[in-house]
Amino acid sequence: MQQHLKDYARLIVQIGANVQKGQTVVISASADSAYFVRMVAEAAYDAGARDVVTRFFDDALTRMHFLRADSAVFDEVPGWIPAFFREYADQGAAFIRIESSDPELLLGTDPDRIQRNNISTSKALKSYYDKMMGNAFPWTIAAIPAEAWASKVFPDLSPGEAIERLWEAIFAAVHVGKGDPVAIWREKIATMAARANALSAHQFVKLHFQNNLGTDLTLTLPEAHKWVACGEKAKTGTNFVANIPTEEIFVLPDRIGTEGVVYASMPLSLNGNLVENIKFTFEKGKIVKAEATKGLEHLEKELEIDEGARYLGEIALVPYHSPISQMNILFYNTLFDENASCHLAFGRAYPTFLDTDDRTEEELKARGMNDSLVHVDFMIGTADLSITGTTAAGEEIAVFVDGNFVV
Amino acid sequence: MQQHLKDYARLIVQIGANVQKGQTVVISASADSAYFVRMVAEAAYDAGARDVVTRFFDDALTRMHFLRADSAVFDEVPGWIPAFFREYADQGAAFIRIESSDPELLLGTDPDRIQRNNISTSKALKSYYDKMMGNAFPWTIAAIPAEAWASKVFPDLSPGEAIERLWEAIFAAVHVGKGDPVAIWREKIATMAARANALSAHQFVKLHFQNNLGTDLTLTLPEAHKWVACGEKAKTGTNFVANIPTEEIFVLPDRIGTEGVVYASMPLSLNGNLVENIKFTFEKGKIVKAEATKGLEHLEKELEIDEGARYLGEIALVPYHSPISQMNILFYNTLFDENASCHLAFGRAYPTFLDTDDRTEEELKARGMNDSLVHVDFMIGTADLSITGTTAAGEEIAVFVDGNFVV
Repeated sequence: MQQHLKDYARLIVQIGANVQKGQTVVISASADSAYFVRMVAEAAYDAGARDVVTRFFDDALTRMHFLRADSAVFDEVPGWIPAFFREYADQGAAFIRIESSDPELLLGTDPDRIQRNNISTSKALKSYYDKMMGNAFPWTIAAIPAEAWASKVFPDLSPGEAIERLWEAIFAAVHVGKGDPVAIWREKIATMAARANALSAHQFVKLHFQNNLGTDLTLTLPEAHKWVACGEKAKTGTNFVANIPTEEIFVLPDRIGTEGVVYASMPLSLNGNLVENIKFTFEKGKIVKAEATKGLEHLEKELEIDEGARYLGEIALVPYHSPISQMNILFYNTLFDENASCHLAFGRAYPTFLDTDDRTEEELKARGMNDSLVHVDFMIGTADLSITGTTAAGEEIAVFVDGNFVV
Repeated sequence: MQQHLKDYARLIVQIGANVQKGQTVVISASADSAYFVRMVAEAAYDAGARDVVTRFFDDALTRMHFLRADSAVFDEVPGWIPAFFREYADQGAAFIRIESSDPELLLGTDPDRIQRNNISTSKALKSYYDKMMGNAFPWTIAAIPAEAWASKVFPDLSPGEAIERLWEAIFAAVHVGKGDPVAIWREKIATMAARANALSAHQFVKLHFQNNLGTDLTLTLPEAHKWVACGEKAKTGTNFVANIPTEEIFVLPDRIGTEGVVYASMPLSLNGNLVENIKFTFEKGKIVKAEATKGLEHLEKELEIDEGARYLGEIALVPYHSPISQMNILFYNTLFDENASCHLAFGRAYPTFLDTDDRTEEELKARGMNDSLVHVDFMIGTADLSITGTTAAGEEIAVFVDGNFVV
């Protein structure tokens, strides 16, 4: 177990953030994760980090804050918080986030407080998030178990057993315990990049998603779009992997091109609340109707945040036979669930164009890129999902049949 | 135990910081203390706190930072750190610090790195510390056990037993477990204030300390000095108790009036290293010779920080029969050891004058107040300590005989 933990820490540092000699590393994690943060910090110093800065949070204190703080604080962001992120982003630091939160952390708290908090925080950190999504610096997100989360995933087990099972699932998902994970990931990155390049070569103008859940959705893709897999290049000059694990190949859609209906295939943990059985109806790119059998008020609050929240920002393809999907575990955590399933995101897009380096935000928007304070992934993959691409020449090409790549 | 912990948390909030309705509360603590921070936060919200902000640190990460970070980082302080403290200080927030650190946390690290870190941090936070020592806002320091600290105090016990014994000692020292601690502390504050006022009424011009360790030290006191006990008044308008526990009555000395020799009576945990058997020789207020049998290099590095580090900033009287002293435990932690023993501090003075409210820093210095980036308490009390005061009229009055108050 100790060796697995060390390998995982090293994977996060060497493949996830790809920490370079002389680079500052910023780690965000829960206070209860300190034991693992220490291992990540050791691995970062081993990689030559200049310094390791840690930002600890705590689930219970976060929940208490939402339940008990003065209502006015949710419209404010203390100035030192954007100063913190700006300072390290400007240095080209490597940002590592270790997740472990309860998927229902904010159950029973006021959706209005959550919405106002998201608006004020997203606005205060807009330039940081813009830089992050534009890969101005390397960043990565990974996860470790905590009791509340593990017990949600494995409700029939004791807390200790649930944590053990969740560790096993995470190690399997991130390829720890099968040899040198860094070497395994290098190979994986090359394989996925080849598939992404093959998709980009088609330059599909349209994608059609269909399955027996009722999904019947058409999306259009902007000119010179680029399908991206793990192994992105930061403007600091290094490659990094933003999510550990990752199985997705993704691209931005044209903002106003989406038409039809899509059904989510998994529950979504959104702002510490579960939203179940989502159905979206689109017209001219916009979500004109949002439905859900549970947590609809949280979904609606998120969609209200700004105009861009009702438009799509990401299309991501994940085979139904991906290793994480095959585990057949509902993680209630987007980092894992999104890598078990094709998904879309509403809100801000990543600028995945073949030629983005010198483009301004305005030019990117003119090319069809959606902007918003939010970015929320939701899972739509099923065993029977089919995706058909249409090329500029009008040729129809099967991309997915029965939930898996055929292209 | 749970009830004791809750009582302790409430004591820290209601008596220590004396949190008011609508006030922001800032808690600094180690990540491993999160379980107790949650109780303090609950107590703060119970008291009507507007919001609770937490700043977690971690001993192991701090040690790693001193051992492995790039040497240049010890001369820098990221801008967001002073911004953090300034922002909350300007709001009149209540600052709570929960200590638990290993007294030898930085053993074996480079004293030069520690010194440069102390200089850069003290400079960056000078205005915050000035405000704190001038009681611009309420602040308090308390402690909870952690394994490394507890095992240092009780080296013959298992870690679990050591933690249990240290909890017992802390609860005894802070009067938890004997009824309502808030009521007990209200009475204690009144008793100690009466004694401090009696000392101030004498307006001693000189104090002479003597014992069989070899201490033979004369200090002079500035005009209109004020002996202060727990229960200080913040400029935000509320009383607070800066240290939980506290048994001391203290005053500032005249900067240049100290002559003679003083021997420390306990080891000192200074910057994560133990300094043992300190002997200081003073001339015209200045430490002209510093000796120690262990950790002298750390003591010297601290005295080198600036000119004011070699002058005294505090005289504190604690009876040898104080409750904490009677436990006969060497805590290796100033918060406890200083309340078991008379002590002095070298470095920055608290402005303990009868009339300070409208004085500038320059006027305070002209009246004999020492300024420095450092403030380090060291213990000098013994069972045979005698202290004699001399009044302006030349009358000699016994203040301490055989280690205890007689005045």
